[in-house]
Amino acid sequence: MSDARDFYRHRKVMITGGLGFIGSNLARHLVDLGADVLLVDSLIPDYGGNLFNIDGLEHTLRVNVADVRQATTMNYLVRDREVIFNLAGQVSHIDSMRDPETDLDINCRSQLGLLEACRRHNPDAKVVYASTRQIYGRPDRLPVDESQLVRPTDINGINKAAGEQYHLVYNNVFGVRACSLRLTNVYGPRQLIRHNRQGFIGWFIRLALENREIQVYGDGSQVRDFVHVDDVADAFLRAGATDTVNGLALNVGGHEPTSHKDLVETLIAAAGSGRVRYVPWPEEAKKIDIGSFFSDSTRFQKATGWRSTVSLKEGLTQTLAFYRAHHDKYVDDEESLT
Amino acid sequence: MSDARDFYRHRKVMITGGLGFIGSNLARHLVDLGADVLLVDSLIPDYGGNLFNIDGLEHTLRVNVADVRQATTMNYLVRDREVIFNLAGQVSHIDSMRDPETDLDINCRSQLGLLEACRRHNPDAKVVYASTRQIYGRPDRLPVDESQLVRPTDINGINKAAGEQYHLVYNNVFGVRACSLRLTNVYGPRQLIRHNRQGFIGWFIRLALENREIQVYGDGSQVRDFVHVDDVADAFLRAGATDTVNGLALNVGGHEPTSHKDLVETLIAAAGSGRVRYVPWPEEAKKIDIGSFFSDSTRFQKATGWRSTVSLKEGLTQTLAFYRAHHDKYVDDEESLT
Repeated sequence: MSDARDFYRHRKVMITGGLGFIGSNLARHLVDLGADVLLVDSLIPDYGGNLFNIDGLEHTLRVNVADVRQATTMNYLVRDREVIFNLAGQVSHIDSMRDPETDLDINCRSQLGLLEACRRHNPDAKVVYASTRQIYGRPDRLPVDESQLVRPTDINGINKAAGEQYHLVYNNVFGVRACSLRLTNVYGPRQLIRHNRQGFIGWFIRLALENREIQVYGDGSQVRDFVHVDDVADAFLRAGATDTVNGLALNVGGHEPTSHKDLVETLIAAAGSGRVRYVPWPEEAKKIDIGSFFSDSTRFQKATGWRSTVSLKEGLTQTLAFYRAHHDKYVDDEESLT
Repeated sequence: MSDARDFYRHRKVMITGGLGFIGSNLARHLVDLGADVLLVDSLIPDYGGNLFNIDGLEHTLRVNVADVRQATTMNYLVRDREVIFNLAGQVSHIDSMRDPETDLDINCRSQLGLLEACRRHNPDAKVVYASTRQIYGRPDRLPVDESQLVRPTDINGINKAAGEQYHLVYNNVFGVRACSLRLTNVYGPRQLIRHNRQGFIGWFIRLALENREIQVYGDGSQVRDFVHVDDVADAFLRAGATDTVNGLALNVGGHEPTSHKDLVETLIAAAGSGRVRYVPWPEEAKKIDIGSFFSDSTRFQKATGWRSTVSLKEGLTQTLAFYRAHHDKYVDDEESLT
């Protein structure tokens, strides 16, 4: 990775969704590497952007509050950026089913807009897109590699898949270098934990920390893979620094397959608080559930040398310590429990 | 098929894109079967809608000029319709690369809008969506069945794939019964032949008829399958009348794999006019070309008993006779040659 890391010194980069969970962690790494970092974030309440996420970095990077849906603004902002980490998105499955049009606007239209901005105003930019394992839907076999069908079970998955494919077409047809990382369940410091509509892992961490009951659907035997946000940041850095992955959509998976039961037990042990209860599947959740899932990241590993390095136990312990120290920055008095 | 055909007597049906190529041919069959037919079409110039397509049917069906992008209008129109054949779309690959946002609006946003209209105002409707083999992109192996990856090579293919997936998710999650037919290259009477941006087959037919030169890229060895619009109409009728295909996206392929060379020779022989010239691939076309392609429709055949029945020679002969009789209704004085 030494080459890839050297690559970023004085490099002009932009992160859309830069005040969010993954964006802000990636920004920390980029600042450490001496990059010229521009964060773009809409700071829409209920989404993941949080100014505290860049606490201590305020004077080492630049923040521009803007919405990726605003094409003229994006046309301007992309102009001098050499690498664009394109992480802005609507990430709630649940919200996408309640308001599919907003999900479409953010996850499809804005992605097209950003790519058009590059095509027209900065065709030499390299774009790395944050996709998701969710686009696979219910897998035919495990582990899941990139030869499996993309068959999303919800609107968010459909729109994220389209967003990914736009990047590949702009790479192949218009020469805007781009690639897509299909991220599995990501966890770590600076994730939104104010409400439970953006994935369960952050929410479980909060419940454990507050010594509350964690509800697991079914018997907890379903398997997922979890990847620490530092490993994900490393994946983005590598993808941004090499042209070998251009035009590709590649899995970035977790350390090891883990059942929900084992996840929660590990979490409660690490926290020293919280408790688990197994409850029947709610009808709505069952309808878009995908069964067990874990990723095969072999292709991305071979292309870039990347590996997941943070074990679940280690990662959870570090994450819990972060939220313990900064609980008030991530949890409002008025909770949004839906 | 007798059961499926009986199904439509007095049945309230709607066809979006109903004045277009496939929509108007389907409308003829539905009128013959005694259905209560509502055609919705935007009649946007340069798209496929043509009032002459329903010549002679004016008093046996109802036409409502409307754009599927207008959600409030669609909310109203879907209300009493039992089967909705959802054929409205932007179908030009080329236009989608020039103006991706319009393609997104029509092929993604409007599809979501129509499905939301059904969910909110007519949840018992059955929706049959016109998808396309184009969403597969360049296939890994031939013939192409539904286990192959969806990997579009252009914006239109991406948006059509998303439109298809919305239908499946609304079926699976919201109970709006829906299915999708992945149509291969369709030809026959009432296809747009005014310009060459909506597929090559109609354009080749026109060139042959006008005794002009037909340019084939490369050596003409690339293979496609072609399906006559009457066979496609039959596929829609069957899909609309059965619940066995709900939640599925199924291939509707052609009679037999045919090289471009053989297609053009058959066409010129049937027309008694026209000539062929083989030319090098233009760079832009090469970038989004998919190589040879032909469909395996076994799954749809097994589910519905459908079969492609019109041979290419027979279908071309009948199509040429139609355009010979009605040339002035399909070709303007001012041609749009791009």
